[in-house]
Amino acid sequence: MAIYKAPLRDMRFVLHEMLDIERHLAGLDGCEDATAETIDAVLAEAARICEEVVLPTNASGDEAGCTLEDGAVRTPPGFAAAYHTLREGGWFSLGCDPAYGGQGLPHTLAVFFEEILQSSNLAFSLYPGLTRGAYMALHHHASDALKAAWMPRLVSGEWSAVMCLTEPHCGTDLGLLRTRAERADDGTYRISGTKIFITGGDQDMTDNIVHLVLARLTDAPAGTRGISMFLVPKFLLDASGEPGERNSLGVGSIEKKMGIKGASTCVMNYEGATGWLVGEENRGLNAMFSMMNHERLMVGQQGLALGEVAYQSAAAYARERLQGRSLGGAKSPEQAADPIIVHPDVRRMLLTARAYNEGARALFGWVSLQVDRMERHPDPAVREAAGDLVALLTPVVKAIFTDNGSEACNLCLQVLGGHGYIREWGMEQLVRDARIAQIYEGANGIHALDLVGRKLQLHGGRLLDRYLQECREFLTSVRDRDDAREFVDPLAEALVRLEEASAWLRGATARDPEEIGAASYDYMRLLALVAFGHMWARAAIVALDARNGDNSGFYESKIHTARFFVRRLLPQTASLLATLRAGADTLMDMPAEAF
Amino acid sequence: MAIYKAPLRDMRFVLHEMLDIERHLAGLDGCEDATAETIDAVLAEAARICEEVVLPTNASGDEAGCTLEDGAVRTPPGFAAAYHTLREGGWFSLGCDPAYGGQGLPHTLAVFFEEILQSSNLAFSLYPGLTRGAYMALHHHASDALKAAWMPRLVSGEWSAVMCLTEPHCGTDLGLLRTRAERADDGTYRISGTKIFITGGDQDMTDNIVHLVLARLTDAPAGTRGISMFLVPKFLLDASGEPGERNSLGVGSIEKKMGIKGASTCVMNYEGATGWLVGEENRGLNAMFSMMNHERLMVGQQGLALGEVAYQSAAAYARERLQGRSLGGAKSPEQAADPIIVHPDVRRMLLTARAYNEGARALFGWVSLQVDRMERHPDPAVREAAGDLVALLTPVVKAIFTDNGSEACNLCLQVLGGHGYIREWGMEQLVRDARIAQIYEGANGIHALDLVGRKLQLHGGRLLDRYLQECREFLTSVRDRDDAREFVDPLAEALVRLEEASAWLRGATARDPEEIGAASYDYMRLLALVAFGHMWARAAIVALDARNGDNSGFYESKIHTARFFVRRLLPQTASLLATLRAGADTLMDMPAEAF
Repeated sequence: MAIYKAPLRDMRFVLHEMLDIERHLAGLDGCEDATAETIDAVLAEAARICEEVVLPTNASGDEAGCTLEDGAVRTPPGFAAAYHTLREGGWFSLGCDPAYGGQGLPHTLAVFFEEILQSSNLAFSLYPGLTRGAYMALHHHASDALKAAWMPRLVSGEWSAVMCLTEPHCGTDLGLLRTRAERADDGTYRISGTKIFITGGDQDMTDNIVHLVLARLTDAPAGTRGISMFLVPKFLLDASGEPGERNSLGVGSIEKKMGIKGASTCVMNYEGATGWLVGEENRGLNAMFSMMNHERLMVGQQGLALGEVAYQSAAAYARERLQGRSLGGAKSPEQAADPIIVHPDVRRMLLTARAYNEGARALFGWVSLQVDRMERHPDPAVREAAGDLVALLTPVVKAIFTDNGSEACNLCLQVLGGHGYIREWGMEQLVRDARIAQIYEGANGIHALDLVGRKLQLHGGRLLDRYLQECREFLTSVRDRDDAREFVDPLAEALVRLEEASAWLRGATARDPEEIGAASYDYMRLLALVAFGHMWARAAIVALDARNGDNSGFYESKIHTARFFVRRLLPQTASLLATLRAGADTLMDMPAEAF
Repeated sequence: MAIYKAPLRDMRFVLHEMLDIERHLAGLDGCEDATAETIDAVLAEAARICEEVVLPTNASGDEAGCTLEDGAVRTPPGFAAAYHTLREGGWFSLGCDPAYGGQGLPHTLAVFFEEILQSSNLAFSLYPGLTRGAYMALHHHASDALKAAWMPRLVSGEWSAVMCLTEPHCGTDLGLLRTRAERADDGTYRISGTKIFITGGDQDMTDNIVHLVLARLTDAPAGTRGISMFLVPKFLLDASGEPGERNSLGVGSIEKKMGIKGASTCVMNYEGATGWLVGEENRGLNAMFSMMNHERLMVGQQGLALGEVAYQSAAAYARERLQGRSLGGAKSPEQAADPIIVHPDVRRMLLTARAYNEGARALFGWVSLQVDRMERHPDPAVREAAGDLVALLTPVVKAIFTDNGSEACNLCLQVLGGHGYIREWGMEQLVRDARIAQIYEGANGIHALDLVGRKLQLHGGRLLDRYLQECREFLTSVRDRDDAREFVDPLAEALVRLEEASAWLRGATARDPEEIGAASYDYMRLLALVAFGHMWARAAIVALDARNGDNSGFYESKIHTARFFVRRLLPQTASLLATLRAGADTLMDMPAEAF
């Protein structure tokens, strides 16, 4: 079974020591109560309840999976009980608006709870995670009447919500979607069509399920400008606002998948189901993006969350498994063999996972703080700046965190050798579960295209300029730190490569639009390495300043891991710059039929 | 369901056009009958029978898995019938000694059949694959009496054989093994102990199963010099040589695994089972290495075999799936969307898999030819040279082919998006099946250590010198080919990096033995990129010479893929050189307890 304890010490390091979160939050509307004590207490309690209540459902949930009986999905044993315990504890409403019963805590705090929840059971975490995404869309776009009817119980978790985009013939390209909506006389709509890959489309944990369905009005324009969003509940509400009549929707089947088997993945059929318009007609994609931007960050975090479990499990194994001897002479001569942690290559695998995890946690904290600033800062210029940084880095978080998460899980499985491949150690489940995060919420290649084809172009390149400026200011601020040179210089070098890549890209894409797609993935990885390098240099400097007198070894480990990152992972920027400059012809010259 | 047609055209390209196989084989003992016509006919028939008989058992075998009933393993439905069909066709004896009923065909031909078999159903292929490994060990080390009793029916496939090394507390470090052997009065031995991860330890396809068990005589020295190999059959032979009395061995349980579910992975208990010594007492590891060297190459090939299926499946999907539009303007304006093959990033994923696959096939053919030369060439100097090259490149084949295989399967799954993650398309099975090849037959990190810690040191560095010489001679031979400069120059540059890395490594390991392990994986990848680059440059030159007048597009595609490799993958040598120079301290400074 996989081993996991919530990494509270590292979370506190990120929140307090790296981000100085209290100071930042103090200036944001509605965050006044988020003191350091509150934050730490919430996270400690989150760790306790997730480790005790949710974690034990993870392996068994994978084994049992979801089943479909008489048109109803049954989640794995224990899921409903765990859900109710968390719901009663108010855990699903941490970051939600007090106007609807939420606790109004900062986003930056709520997401650290989400990491713990995802680590404990990713499949389980999807049900409340999707509800929270739907909450965002409704909060931004629904009418007051809709909000009044639906929000309080979505916030409490009594009801859940799911997003319904994909159809058999279209996923990425929503402009092709065919689900129809017809106006009814009472102001509602009749929704008809089939959606696939609907996570949580049905389950047995809540009394109602809200489907946010993208559909096309009969007189809508073709393409993405003819898509509207509808709230389509499983049960219609009666006069007293309670779930009553069953709506005309049903589960066609559930998918057999590689992983996240505890999450139901449904084919949903809507047969003239009653729906309510969310936002304006034909502006459904706009409404859906409120949901998707949140979900993209959340999915990125899943890579970190599973990478953390993988690291903890593999590190514990490597410290205990006796096999072979150190190349430098026996380290445990009193035992039949040394623990495999003595081997440099085992450490390479573990440190790669650790550098990904801790770097991602710091970056995610930093991005989450920008989300809070973007939403709550009194100064519009600050809100704009924060929004730019969030927009630029969302593809990095979604795609690179999940790529790294899969790599970390695979490396950590490798540490266990054959034991990693059999089910009982829990490592192979992590690999199977982590794999989906590279795909859903937009396959990672789409995010690379979003970064290079869209985010880099917005406002004349303002988003990237803003981020480069942030990095340069950091470099300037530490230029006198000779003790930090080993961390700062490689970052400066990587930053130059990113600037070179950006300049090359501007020239190349002006000549040939295919260069955008051809360079996109390498460029995204290059930007991610810089962003991780930025976080690791900052972390190293905090640790350098704090290590004197510390007996825990925490800060020394931070410095060792930072050094590993800048020496052994950051140099990949060199080959990424070379390969992205190879240009589009190396990809496009082959005729399609020759593949 | 995954799509697969045996890549016969590419196999013929490698065998005839790149390797000039007939000319080489003509000079080898016993290979005189392996004409081009024979080779092509054998492979065409191999393709037919594997596609018709074996491929249909792959997905269903994964679904059903193996079961244990009353101590007996039942393989998935269809496995036994497929096994019997192939056995009757003589497919398991292609490369075996005619003295025991084998067909005596060159190794280089037999392995191309094995690739097709592995692609068709990896789990299934393990049963005959392990028998063939055991055949090697017995052929080299068993007494004439043992050979007479067991070899003919192992060669025919009527009986199978398995290798029994791992125990619960030891896998990599066989010196720790505890299974005991006691001498009996009749010259046999009594074997007692527990082995785990025994692939094919029991099954229902053959009348007998030979276990080659590593065990320790009661008076044996400790460590690896006290290990002997025993032939321990499931059924003892009666006076007429037929399977009779059941031996004292049994299946304790079978493992639930991530993949290769059609292959039984058994816990085996030996309780005073009767065994016969293979080779000399206390020289069992030596005997096992005859088997393991073959199995390592075979396992490496599995990465290629699954990568090929993944590529074919994903390429077919990408040519057909309509979604979005080309960045350069609609390519199929008559349709609602363009096929996703128009997107550069989709091509990046497909071409990466293809460059891995075709590069690996060429390199595997080249190494296999060296195996034939090492075993059959009349000139001992040629045999020695060939043996050096095989020894040097075996770790690359085992580890990098399987790393690349997993990466290729994952990239190709990604091309299918959500459809790749659900079972019905067969892609996720490929990822799960491919994952084991990085682990069994020695986890890949062990092979990196074998390369850097052992192979580079042998005979004063002769193995690497021989290979560098081979590459330099190739570069010299093509230095006047201006048309090939784009392929040859990057290879020359990568070769310089390999030489720099080798020189650095010699200096560093003289100072600190931990540098061997610290540099091993990056060094192995660097060597692999050079070896692939060598094959791709050779392939490109063959294609440049042959493309005039060719209407099939085959040679043009070869050139495009070669260009992709040298421009977009080979530059990774730059960052590998940088990261291996980071040194051991970046890995070893962290105290073990801080992980």
